[in-house]
Amino acid sequence: MSSDGAMPIVERYLADRAPRFVDELKEFLRIPSVSAISAHRADVRRAAEWVRDQLESAGLKTELVETEGHPIVYAEWMHAPGAPTALVYGHYDVQPPDPLNEWQTPPFEPDVRDGHVFARGATDDKGQMLTHVKSVEAWLKAHGSLPVNVRFVIEGEEEVGSNNLDRFLAERREQLACDVAVVSDTSQYAPGIPAITYGLRGIVAVEVTLHGPRQDLHSGIFGGSIANPCNVLARLIGELHDAEGRVQIPGFYDDVQPLTAEERRGFAALPFSEESFLKDLGASAVAGEQGFSTLERRWARPTCDVNGLTGGYQGEGPKTIIPAKASAKITCRLVPDQDNDRIVAGIEQFFRDRCPQSVRLEFKSYHGCPATVCDVHSPWMKAAQRAIEVGFGKKPVLIREGGSIPVVGTFKEVLGIDTLLLGWGQNTDNLHSPNERFSLDAFQRGIHASAALWQELATG
Amino acid sequence: MSSDGAMPIVERYLADRAPRFVDELKEFLRIPSVSAISAHRADVRRAAEWVRDQLESAGLKTELVETEGHPIVYAEWMHAPGAPTALVYGHYDVQPPDPLNEWQTPPFEPDVRDGHVFARGATDDKGQMLTHVKSVEAWLKAHGSLPVNVRFVIEGEEEVGSNNLDRFLAERREQLACDVAVVSDTSQYAPGIPAITYGLRGIVAVEVTLHGPRQDLHSGIFGGSIANPCNVLARLIGELHDAEGRVQIPGFYDDVQPLTAEERRGFAALPFSEESFLKDLGASAVAGEQGFSTLERRWARPTCDVNGLTGGYQGEGPKTIIPAKASAKITCRLVPDQDNDRIVAGIEQFFRDRCPQSVRLEFKSYHGCPATVCDVHSPWMKAAQRAIEVGFGKKPVLIREGGSIPVVGTFKEVLGIDTLLLGWGQNTDNLHSPNERFSLDAFQRGIHASAALWQELATG
Repeated sequence: MSSDGAMPIVERYLADRAPRFVDELKEFLRIPSVSAISAHRADVRRAAEWVRDQLESAGLKTELVETEGHPIVYAEWMHAPGAPTALVYGHYDVQPPDPLNEWQTPPFEPDVRDGHVFARGATDDKGQMLTHVKSVEAWLKAHGSLPVNVRFVIEGEEEVGSNNLDRFLAERREQLACDVAVVSDTSQYAPGIPAITYGLRGIVAVEVTLHGPRQDLHSGIFGGSIANPCNVLARLIGELHDAEGRVQIPGFYDDVQPLTAEERRGFAALPFSEESFLKDLGASAVAGEQGFSTLERRWARPTCDVNGLTGGYQGEGPKTIIPAKASAKITCRLVPDQDNDRIVAGIEQFFRDRCPQSVRLEFKSYHGCPATVCDVHSPWMKAAQRAIEVGFGKKPVLIREGGSIPVVGTFKEVLGIDTLLLGWGQNTDNLHSPNERFSLDAFQRGIHASAALWQELATG
Repeated sequence: MSSDGAMPIVERYLADRAPRFVDELKEFLRIPSVSAISAHRADVRRAAEWVRDQLESAGLKTELVETEGHPIVYAEWMHAPGAPTALVYGHYDVQPPDPLNEWQTPPFEPDVRDGHVFARGATDDKGQMLTHVKSVEAWLKAHGSLPVNVRFVIEGEEEVGSNNLDRFLAERREQLACDVAVVSDTSQYAPGIPAITYGLRGIVAVEVTLHGPRQDLHSGIFGGSIANPCNVLARLIGELHDAEGRVQIPGFYDDVQPLTAEERRGFAALPFSEESFLKDLGASAVAGEQGFSTLERRWARPTCDVNGLTGGYQGEGPKTIIPAKASAKITCRLVPDQDNDRIVAGIEQFFRDRCPQSVRLEFKSYHGCPATVCDVHSPWMKAAQRAIEVGFGKKPVLIREGGSIPVVGTFKEVLGIDTLLLGWGQNTDNLHSPNERFSLDAFQRGIHASAALWQELATG
């Protein structure tokens, strides 16, 4: 069935159903699918089933794929012989919502104000991912068919390292054959400036614990004679950067590809106000590696950040102890061509080299992923640029982002395909923070762009 | 009424009532009087009333003195005209019990095993303080009178800085006239080596918080461009000590009295095994300021310890954020003649001097106290030495301790009296730690020594 002339019918369907789509998004956001917290296991499954049911009723063939962790939702519609096949990837799990007391409305009771829906996962990634489910529904319900073949792979472990996704992709590599992947888990460049992200940073995540005395000790009776794990850990973390903001992990910069002059010019040409950047974040000054602009620091330079620091007394008032232990959760964002294993080994070596005999070092590493950069001149990239212009009324800019989407590297490696990173949200939508939100206008425009994308991918 | 020949009668009373005294101690330990945690406010009052009732039924005139915080128990027996007056000070409040999961039996369900009672406050200070209540009861019940006048001041805020005690002592300074204070809130030198403590360290307590962005940020999107309060705080804390373990706070050592050669010889003559010290604590090596022995570091050198470190994600698994803030609870133990205000100002200056513009420093100080050293040649000290020999069958050694008992300085300043620090417990009794305990043998011997003390103070 030809799709020529189908877009107006699809667009009418989208316009008529827009209010229902918002209701469905809110229903989805009410499920507290926090993959990191085992007490939420049943909620995570409930979110998977919700996505499965949505795709099923849109007209796709679906499957809930069990893993050793949370299930993967797989769906396909493969009735466009000769047309390209797109694979939509997204995730239905969300970050933990804490600190809870900083939310204006509860994280799992979506609230609409100022044209945004506020809830954990609103942007990352429930709202953005749902746009592709709704665009496919529109094509199938309004027109009876899609102009391309589509597969959906929606996982529930993106926020905890996607531990079971790689095996799924590897095991089904032939069944999943496709031409391009489509992922909406990034951001527009700014309000009114839609973007396609062609590069992402990688990540390694570790946890360092220093053990001192067997248990907390009275700081008066013992203070001064026994190493304090909090003080020692602080000193080691303090040495992670030099005075110029450069990371001191051995070999850290050895494989870093320097930014090209062309890229630096491209970044510099983008509108960027440091003043409003700081105002948005409520920070008093930018900081970071000397010799690089803020966009370069965020998109194309590696980092080393403490994400959590814990030791000793955490309650109200003073408590005079020498803590038994102290620990830090640390992540490094990586850029091409840093090697994850080598960086993790470097971090461990950094701590082992400096750890005094008076404390014992425990080192743990979590799953990570390497950095990726995609081809900006492919036909898929051109199709996506046109589709975004349809949905958002503006040509997108080409940017990199500082976050990590591990699956992009896996798609390249396992399926041999590039990924179109089409972000509908804003990076000021409080992703991973209290009061996460998603613009309802961007939600509807994203659905529209997605619907256009299927057409544009087919015409090539 | 003469007290000559009364001791055998008192001792028989103590021997007969020993099991009941243990039951009463356990009853006292069941009250979770954690002064730092506001949810325990009613329990703290219940503990005060328990002490008041004990003293009342022992035969003293009692009063529950309201303060802006927790109440003070006051009691007196002033019917020995011409005899000296002793003031017993102690506290009925206890440290928070956490980490709860490291207790072998619940902290407020006293359990007797291996000759010890295990519970929060067993040694510090419920068990030790109760010895004086029971010895006074024995004199009054068995003999009908005491050989000296006694006053009791038992407070409920010792573990949170004794904020309301100074006002009480100042307001009642004339009513509280006395000759010597008696406090059992220290330790024996070691099992089988009873001690009198003639010196204590002082303390200052502060909390430093660094504020970065308004709220936690995605470490991918923003990492590298914004100061991370955890990393910055760690660096500043790391700079608190130099490579030789010396504290880098401005002016920190300016007023420190060097140890005399005589004191160093005295400390060196005490039995001390570094091996068993480390084994007891489960630590792998001693650490601290270079050029000093372990006892010198603990008793007579100032320190700077982090008691609690908090920032960012505290839960299970990784969370990729730049935390909005990070904070550290810090205490310094002080020695004569360091000045508390000057040290607090130095700590604040240390952090302000080093705090970059990219984070905002919040600095808070809690109540502290200066270090004290008492006269080892006074008649009261001699009386106490004899009384301990009666109760424990051995002459006590004269030592200093590393902890802080603020009231000792106040007694000197406000009431003009020295304090006898008579410790019955051991410093390995897990004070301020999980599985706090108190030897029941030491409990009964302490009561016995206390009973003898009233006699020895009277004979002079």
